[in-house]
Amino acid sequence: MANDEVILLDFWPSMFGMRLRIALAEKEVKYEYKEEDLRNKSPLLLQMNPIHKKIPVLIHNGKPICESLIGVEYIDEVWKDKSPLLPSDPYERAQARFWGDYIDKKLYVSSRKIWGTKGEEQEAGKKDFIEVLKVLEGELGEKPYFGGDNFGFVDIALIGFYSWFYAYETYGNFSTEAECPKFVAWAKRCMQRDSVAKSLPDQHKVFEFIQMLRQKFGIE
Amino acid sequence: MANDEVILLDFWPSMFGMRLRIALAEKEVKYEYKEEDLRNKSPLLLQMNPIHKKIPVLIHNGKPICESLIGVEYIDEVWKDKSPLLPSDPYERAQARFWGDYIDKKLYVSSRKIWGTKGEEQEAGKKDFIEVLKVLEGELGEKPYFGGDNFGFVDIALIGFYSWFYAYETYGNFSTEAECPKFVAWAKRCMQRDSVAKSLPDQHKVFEFIQMLRQKFGIE
Repeated sequence: MANDEVILLDFWPSMFGMRLRIALAEKEVKYEYKEEDLRNKSPLLLQMNPIHKKIPVLIHNGKPICESLIGVEYIDEVWKDKSPLLPSDPYERAQARFWGDYIDKKLYVSSRKIWGTKGEEQEAGKKDFIEVLKVLEGELGEKPYFGGDNFGFVDIALIGFYSWFYAYETYGNFSTEAECPKFVAWAKRCMQRDSVAKSLPDQHKVFEFIQMLRQKFGIE
Repeated sequence: MANDEVILLDFWPSMFGMRLRIALAEKEVKYEYKEEDLRNKSPLLLQMNPIHKKIPVLIHNGKPICESLIGVEYIDEVWKDKSPLLPSDPYERAQARFWGDYIDKKLYVSSRKIWGTKGEEQEAGKKDFIEVLKVLEGELGEKPYFGGDNFGFVDIALIGFYSWFYAYETYGNFSTEAECPKFVAWAKRCMQRDSVAKSLPDQHKVFEFIQMLRQKFGIE
């Protein structure tokens, strides 16, 4: 795979893009990072993801892979000699996919309401968000990672959200540490990994970005 | 796998349940079908899918697999000696997963509006629905199946919806044959397979079921 050309079309605050950055880092795959301007999408993005027109897109030797968890699974299948991300047992694989899907279906929607809405809708979003975190904490249990002793697929699916937590806590006026201490301990454990630390932006930089979005959307 | 105990918790009009019925039939896996009453869910369903509390659930030797496409992939991984459903090439696998995900994200939501709403919302749903079908027709191209020469994962993800088409066409007042003739030809090709024919209910029976739902929801 030495002559592979790998390109990532991404946008720095995207927790979905972070998944691919982390997976590529875990596999030690070199790639070209291309930042997209989402108000003025590049012809390459529109050509590579004509269906959804969204980042992230992984481009491997000219061929696009869209949807971040599908991309993580692809990376795991292609660069399989290092850091397995999905378990080898079919049942455990199905469980990992289930939790990845759960995060996609439940966490983003509720998190979006915390910083993107006001009043009752915001309160409902915050309540849902903390509930989802508690469900995830239950699944984590006493394990160091969702993948057990090894950092894996579900950890990758979830950890990018952590870079938004300062913003969630500030706008939602709650403490994750108080509500979900095990989640925070897990996130800090993940942040000690090089692959994660270098793929996630600073929480305060994300906060400033969201502040700008809120002003633009008239929420401030 | 001769002594495997396989149970499917399902509800007959569910296009998601149909996916598992078809996959199990393709693999010639014997299983016990348990019909759920969704107004009065069984303790087994609540125990096996405590997160979403939804059918279908595949139970293999006492362990649950939830979310229908995850179940299809599990079936393909466990019973791998017969009728491969996903391609073996990682890129093609990623593409199959992409289209399965597209169907889940786009087709159900728009189809639901055709029979479950009225007026402008219904019209918008119908427009979206036909657009999604046209995108899928584009992906099918001149191939006999989405899986190429072989019936596979994307075909299984999509064909269950066909049992609802008489209802969609009746309530939406359109002809799929006129709008998307290649889709209809593909669906008829799939229906010639035993695994599909025996897994899909009659379109008129589904129509009667939807009529009952519309009356219940006060749409009639």
